[in-house]
Amino acid sequence: MFRSDRPVIGFVTDFGLDGAAATCRGVMLRICRDAQIVDISHTVRKYAIRDGAFILRASLPFMPVGVHVGVVDPGVGTNRRPVAIQASRGDVLIGPDNGLLLPAADALGGATAARELTNRDLWLPSTTSTFHGRDIFAPVAAHLAAGDSTFDAIGTELKVDALIRLPIAEARVTPGRIETEVTYVDSFGNMRLAGGRAELAAAFGDLPDGAPLRVSVGSRSVEDLAFARSFGQVAIGATILYVDSSGDLALADNQGDIAARVGAVVGGSVEMKSA
Amino acid sequence: MFRSDRPVIGFVTDFGLDGAAATCRGVMLRICRDAQIVDISHTVRKYAIRDGAFILRASLPFMPVGVHVGVVDPGVGTNRRPVAIQASRGDVLIGPDNGLLLPAADALGGATAARELTNRDLWLPSTTSTFHGRDIFAPVAAHLAAGDSTFDAIGTELKVDALIRLPIAEARVTPGRIETEVTYVDSFGNMRLAGGRAELAAAFGDLPDGAPLRVSVGSRSVEDLAFARSFGQVAIGATILYVDSSGDLALADNQGDIAARVGAVVGGSVEMKSA
Amino acid sequence: MFRSDRPVIGFVTDFGLDGAAATCRGVMLRICRDAQIVDISHTVRKYAIRDGAFILRASLPFMPVGVHVGVVDPGVGTNRRPVAIQASRGDVLIGPDNGLLLPAADALGGATAARELTNRDLWLPSTTSTFHGRDIFAPVAAHLAAGDSTFDAIGTELKVDALIRLPIAEARVTPGRIETEVTYVDSFGNMRLAGGRAELAAAFGDLPDGAPLRVSVGSRSVEDLAFARSFGQVAIGATILYVDSSGDLALADNQGDIAARVGAVVGGSVEMKSA
Repeated sequence: MFRSDRPVIGFVTDFGLDGAAATCRGVMLRICRDAQIVDISHTVRKYAIRDGAFILRASLPFMPVGVHVGVVDPGVGTNRRPVAIQASRGDVLIGPDNGLLLPAADALGGATAARELTNRDLWLPSTTSTFHGRDIFAPVAAHLAAGDSTFDAIGTELKVDALIRLPIAEARVTPGRIETEVTYVDSFGNMRLAGGRAELAAAFGDLPDGAPLRVSVGSRSVEDLAFARSFGQVAIGATILYVDSSGDLALADNQGDIAARVGAVVGGSVEMKSA
Repeated sequence: MFRSDRPVIGFVTDFGLDGAAATCRGVMLRICRDAQIVDISHTVRKYAIRDGAFILRASLPFMPVGVHVGVVDPGVGTNRRPVAIQASRGDVLIGPDNGLLLPAADALGGATAARELTNRDLWLPSTTSTFHGRDIFAPVAAHLAAGDSTFDAIGTELKVDALIRLPIAEARVTPGRIETEVTYVDSFGNMRLAGGRAELAAAFGDLPDGAPLRVSVGSRSVEDLAFARSFGQVAIGATILYVDSSGDLALADNQGDIAARVGAVVGGSVEMKSA
Repeated sequence: MFRSDRPVIGFVTDFGLDGAAATCRGVMLRICRDAQIVDISHTVRKYAIRDGAFILRASLPFMPVGVHVGVVDPGVGTNRRPVAIQASRGDVLIGPDNGLLLPAADALGGATAARELTNRDLWLPSTTSTFHGRDIFAPVAAHLAAGDSTFDAIGTELKVDALIRLPIAEARVTPGRIETEVTYVDSFGNMRLAGGRAELAAAFGDLPDGAPLRVSVGSRSVEDLAFARSFGQVAIGATILYVDSSGDLALADNQGDIAARVGAVVGGSVEMKSA
């Protein structure tokens, strides 16, 4: 397992910026004073497990190996399980068993083991039913990071196959056409889509820069746009299809906010055709 | 007093996210290079001393013992005093004398000593009348954290009783009824209220999960809701009264934003009755 | 050059708060595990190079000497150059050659050398055309901070004079009058202006606290206001002209948001006259 003088703890929540995430950081630092906590995002759309999963999957492969905590947890205080998942790269992911963590584990080489967080010696002495981030997830992660607990000691074994998994969005490809869906809307308003370079090639062959395409979003908008490598290659306001920095298809208005303009939502359908 | 290789400095302001808080962090790091600065919140509602006090009180008990800086300071540049308050647990709180810091000191075991920040050797060499966070509070905190100043050396002694204290919100309890007020609206829109488990028991006895209650917020809304341990125990959109993670009474819409829905404001009255 | 056990990396972007900036931090930490990364701001107005330049210039002089990364980069993936600029104080600034970095270099004693980031050994092994923050700027900065690259080794030399420079906003002063422009709108809504104490004295002589002035913003609003040292010296809602914490002229509503009230935009004209 990872071992460092300054263990890294990645941290993603929908807690907002008014102190709840910092309270968890305090809990971690009291247990593991040398932890290097990386606040990845605390402004995940409230209750949006899928958004949190996207952010974890996109960021963790670029982080040092560590213990990472994800908390987007509408089921806190119910019987949803608190879990830890070991990933092939050496990381441990900690959070609720609601689908939030598995895509990131896949991106780190796959989940190799899982435990339910049943060892209460690793929790705060007193717990609440509304703040498991502070009371359970943060202290368990910090004990692991500090090396004063092993993965096996944090609770009862779970089968990886028994963990809850979000439906996987996939692009359907036919010659000259891709039917896909919005997987995330980033802070620029760029629409990330299911499918990547392979689907693009399967549908359209070897698309040159500037190749024209027709795109419809939901039932509403039909746009003529160009395939481009990056935003600045087209006029300000022009729309592009590009392959994003995670290798996924994406739509953007150069220096604009396409998602706001077309009313895109996560899960909404997108269809692309040769123009 | 606390002593560590990596002294912790908690930091709360209403400075926003555009660089002012980071400028203060820079000042601290130049004086105390090994400080572990915990940004608790920099998006406190502008000028809302009471909100800042709530956040400090809720988060600091979970932080390591340290020097903590709070700056919500509409009186910067006037004759309001810059102060440091020693708390029983060993922490030192630094900021304006406007009521921001004392609730947190109480939560850390009580204020045991106070000083006005009159020792200009601990300030930046040149100061302004609009940015005491950078020029006074940050450097004094960092000198303390670095151990190159003692508490007594930072300025003239003040009586703890002479510090400015915010009015304390209290719940008024009669059998079958609690009259209280909104003490904070969190980033989920949950309404935190004055009073806790004791007041609840005094008014309603031993409330079971799911017990119905009637709640009015200000003069406007009357709602039927249930007492619940956590959000996920009711339908999406249903309203609950719960005891929050600080032990206070609170109202929430499950996966919704009750404060926005009912127009709640800090200080607004809330009344709860048996249904 | 700077040398420390915990090298400081200041970091400013318009990436927002949903994980892109943290991904870059992960990249830096994998290369330089002991880096003390100071997130200065990641909510720079999208694509607003001038806003990013303002924030870097205002904050970096208060940071420890370090390697600092700025990414507000509408031209990512085009032929705009990725550059590193050495400043007289010892810092190195890394980012796109679009004007973002030079005002900060000036504030750190002036740019003394520049390099284009052409040494691909210091980049991530695989790069994209939309995320140079992660693929190029972060790893180059971290290699420099870790001391495993020298400044000269990061790429081909550039003349400092050949770097792109934003137009410099200047105040035009005549007796009893200053014509200037908005250089930044901060998170409080305060309007920062070109010109400072010298221009104020040249136009109005030795202005006492409370001296009345007339101000117009664009063609729209004419206001009577007072010169004041700080906000709290006037009534809540009253407007002041003050010298801000960077030494620049600025307008504020005490506990209000003047920029929202008058519709101020960066670059908009402001005229001040004796009342």
